Amino acid sequence: MAALEKYLNSTEKGRSLFESEIRKIKTPVCKVFIRGGKITPVEFKAAGLTVNSKDAEKVKAKFPYLIEKNGNKILAGTAARARTKIKNKRVAVLFSGGPAAGGHNVVAGIYDMLGADNTLLGVKAGPKGLIKGDLFEIKAEDIKRIRNTGGFDYLGSDRTKIKTPEQFEAVKKTCRDNKLDALVVVGGDDSNTNAAFLAEYLAGNIKEDGSGVQVIGVPKTIDGDLQIGKNLPISFGFDTATKVYSEMVGNILQDTPSSRKYWHFIKLMGRAASHVALEVALQTKPAVALISEEIAEKNMSLNQIIENIAGVVIERSKQGKNYGVVVVPEGVIEFIPEMTRMLKELNQAVAEHEQELENKDLAEKRDILSETLDSDNMALFASLPEYIQEMMLFDRDAHGNLQVSQIPTERLLIDMVKKHVKKQSPDVKFATLNHFFGYEGRCGVPSLFDAAYTYNLGLAAGALALAGKTGYMASFTGLDQGGKILAIPLAALLNVEVRHGKDEMVIEKSLVELDSPAFKYFVKNRERWAEADLFNSPGPRQLWGPSAKQMPVTVALNQGYKTLEFKI
Amino acid sequence: MAALEKYLNSTEKGRSLFESEIRKIKTPVCKVFIRGGKITPVEFKAAGLTVNSKDAEKVKAKFPYLIEKNGNKILAGTAARARTKIKNKRVAVLFSGGPAAGGHNVVAGIYDMLGADNTLLGVKAGPKGLIKGDLFEIKAEDIKRIRNTGGFDYLGSDRTKIKTPEQFEAVKKTCRDNKLDALVVVGGDDSNTNAAFLAEYLAGNIKEDGSGVQVIGVPKTIDGDLQIGKNLPISFGFDTATKVYSEMVGNILQDTPSSRKYWHFIKLMGRAASHVALEVALQTKPAVALISEEIAEKNMSLNQIIENIAGVVIERSKQGKNYGVVVVPEGVIEFIPEMTRMLKELNQAVAEHEQELENKDLAEKRDILSETLDSDNMALFASLPEYIQEMMLFDRDAHGNLQVSQIPTERLLIDMVKKHVKKQSPDVKFATLNHFFGYEGRCGVPSLFDAAYTYNLGLAAGALALAGKTGYMASFTGLDQGGKILAIPLAALLNVEVRHGKDEMVIEKSLVELDSPAFKYFVKNRERWAEADLFNSPGPRQLWGPSAKQMPVTVALNQGYKTLEFKI
Repeated sequence: MAALEKYLNSTEKGRSLFESEIRKIKTPVCKVFIRGGKITPVEFKAAGLTVNSKDAEKVKAKFPYLIEKNGNKILAGTAARARTKIKNKRVAVLFSGGPAAGGHNVVAGIYDMLGADNTLLGVKAGPKGLIKGDLFEIKAEDIKRIRNTGGFDYLGSDRTKIKTPEQFEAVKKTCRDNKLDALVVVGGDDSNTNAAFLAEYLAGNIKEDGSGVQVIGVPKTIDGDLQIGKNLPISFGFDTATKVYSEMVGNILQDTPSSRKYWHFIKLMGRAASHVALEVALQTKPAVALISEEIAEKNMSLNQIIENIAGVVIERSKQGKNYGVVVVPEGVIEFIPEMTRMLKELNQAVAEHEQELENKDLAEKRDILSETLDSDNMALFASLPEYIQEMMLFDRDAHGNLQVSQIPTERLLIDMVKKHVKKQSPDVKFATLNHFFGYEGRCGVPSLFDAAYTYNLGLAAGALALAGKTGYMASFTGLDQGGKILAIPLAALLNVEVRHGKDEMVIEKSLVELDSPAFKYFVKNRERWAEADLFNSPGPRQLWGPSAKQMPVTVALNQGYKTLEFKI
Repeated sequence: MAALEKYLNSTEKGRSLFESEIRKIKTPVCKVFIRGGKITPVEFKAAGLTVNSKDAEKVKAKFPYLIEKNGNKILAGTAARARTKIKNKRVAVLFSGGPAAGGHNVVAGIYDMLGADNTLLGVKAGPKGLIKGDLFEIKAEDIKRIRNTGGFDYLGSDRTKIKTPEQFEAVKKTCRDNKLDALVVVGGDDSNTNAAFLAEYLAGNIKEDGSGVQVIGVPKTIDGDLQIGKNLPISFGFDTATKVYSEMVGNILQDTPSSRKYWHFIKLMGRAASHVALEVALQTKPAVALISEEIAEKNMSLNQIIENIAGVVIERSKQGKNYGVVVVPEGVIEFIPEMTRMLKELNQAVAEHEQELENKDLAEKRDILSETLDSDNMALFASLPEYIQEMMLFDRDAHGNLQVSQIPTERLLIDMVKKHVKKQSPDVKFATLNHFFGYEGRCGVPSLFDAAYTYNLGLAAGALALAGKTGYMASFTGLDQGGKILAIPLAALLNVEVRHGKDEMVIEKSLVELDSPAFKYFVKNRERWAEADLFNSPGPRQLWGPSAKQMPVTVALNQGYKTLEFKI
């Protein structure tokens, strides 16, 4: 075989030149973990900070052990060291939910913190694997292979929520079978809520000596909706995902004044919150970026949104710019108040008139509904493109519910803006293309920021395990000045929310706040960005090159850092 | 304003840290251009190589001047220098067609070669600007700003084909008004064909002394379908585009064993040829990659293609892998022989039965067509998903032609594979997602390869202008050992092809050859890639990091280089 072919074959199984080299990158470590040049466990002490549930009484009733033990006090990793060396601890780690860049470094961080005297087990395929008891021992050579790599493939993941008594019982059995002392759950808001329930459930009577199994959470999600002000700047994976999306959006922005032909409507993954859309907008400065939270707060109608976009299209056209980029957050539909009202009434009407509506075509269905729906709701429904009306009436899940996330928002906006522009200014050229960026950002190789952030979160989770703590989520703050390790009490984070018609205790999803520095900076500048081409094409920069050490713009702004460059 | 806000504002107008730093990168220069450490013009001499038209006689009749002057001989840039310094030449450059990374460096290369004694003009907005006479003088500060940046925005581009006598006349006027000595056309196969016609037309009687205006072509297109064996390894922009797509496809591949949930069908831009799909497949090693040229050559039916993909899906499912990636070239539909036959007959039938078909629904239309269409064609048509049948009958352009490029091939394949898998192995889980990558790869910042390649092509085009040559396309070969500058005679590249029902002289589009080393390497390995997860996630690597100096895999294989690393 020729030399080049040999080289090409040698890059299989994650051994490309790129993948081989990233493993060698040394991620910076928070000073508190280093003693004599080595990674060392730390003690956790009250940091003088608290988190406060809006439903403290209800939480206390449900979490007597955790509230009694941890209260609402945040802990900080301190320079004080444990007097005796901890040995023979058995800790397991699992990934829960969609992948995010840096998961493998969390595992590496825990492993390095536990050291040779303790054992780290991996749970295969997420919570499902925990229920089934599918665990294996993690070895040094695995850690060498996965360090700094993207994906969750080393352990796998799934979305099972542990909620039935049988499931809790099965987890207990897994803990006993594997003689676990601690379990680290790497996941988003729901998974960390689940971790709180597990921590309470596993608090005692698990091991032979009557003690419990510790549960520690690690904040993961590319959506960025798990953040707690100054106490948790961001969830991991957000930085890599937004850098990947910004590279692509930047490339497309660069294309617009080159081919001078298209308006690109780009939907970005990120579930309900608009953190991803805001971050990408700040990094790339497109002509328009919708922020769902602003739409809800200002009670904007769909028509107003359309008018705003059409206004920018028409204004730019006067300058000879028949092109631009509109950034659309995935969840925007559910943040338009009139839309939510209409969908609610529509769902009721469809349920009530099920038989009547059967086997009717769209026009007939519309006639039937017009007798039931409130006139505003009916007008809104009828203003939508017909294929959207059809989706809303025909594409329902097994429970008859509309799959809102299935609605192609970017196409809906294109079609309605097109209609508006045509009416308003028939001569304006408005050719469009649409994109959805999501999956390509979840499993990129972690950026230098995410690589460092996750490795330190892993060290923190490992240190919490060694310190005997349970019911805490690891956090890493002060990223502009060396970093600070925190542990946030999970139970105190819980609030009561109505989900699926029932009261549930959950960690509140963090949304974009309209008084946050990041949103205010966006508002201050967006009109300039709409008018002139001031966009950025930030390029690829995960790991090498001049801008590799930058953190997310929203994080730097909202944390009040003076620089984009992280210093750990 | 806070320090961070100031910094964020300062990155507008292409001045992000990334964009500021890339301007400083020194691209390597072919030795032949360097004398005494400075960029110096070269002489061109016969290289001992030829290109041969299949229709030499017809070409000679149409291009008497070029064939007489240049024949079919390729020239090479040599170390011999011109004895007198060339001064006061006025050269114009234009971009034609879709953008590709590196266009700005072509301009920089021409500018640097012309030096201070000559003038470079930019044509705004492509051939249209040439016709309108929209030119401006390019200044040193512009070159500083655009060096190594992505996009065609500095000049703009368009797709006008110069073909009417009035258009040629207008171009002549522009040349005279601007006192041009030479014109550089940066474009794909069609634009270089156009350059040949312009070179012949402008050969004499333009300037006051009776002399003509030189025309020089530069090979651009991300599709990679402008390449001429050992004499032109690749068109520029291909490397950057395939690196961007490979990063995204690699990220998605990394996602598949992490979430273990989806088959991703990824369509890649690239027009008719499958060069882009093959290159991305070689860089990322997905479970399946379709190569249109193979389908045509082997006369594969749509059903065979579906069966093959379904076979891989079912086989992987047996290993517990209900996930994978299928790479689909943009133009595949038109390479399935039975599909082409069916569409041809369908087009005739629709034209003949126009009135009968009017206002009928799909089932009725199918009945009418079934009496006209050949039974094989009818069976194929009826086997397609109904929304595709509808598109084929309803979505036609102003001339009643089907817009084949509008057919969502990736969805068609998903739906048909789904049906097949369900019939064959009803228990196999087959959840799918589809993507189209295209625009995000045309305007990325040029990779180190494209930055170097285009700068040297620009130097070559500038040198050809100074050497008084016309009717040549610049080329750069021998990329594994310092590089060699060639000039390929444009007229000798032309062949007669039937386009839109008429004989036209064109540069043949280069397709993937089934006996090329790159395709053979793909065939040798694809079964292993289908079976096991041997994929690569090559990551971002345009400019920095360990793999920044790699060139396209197909180029390295097909040129017989021993290494992926370019050495210029």
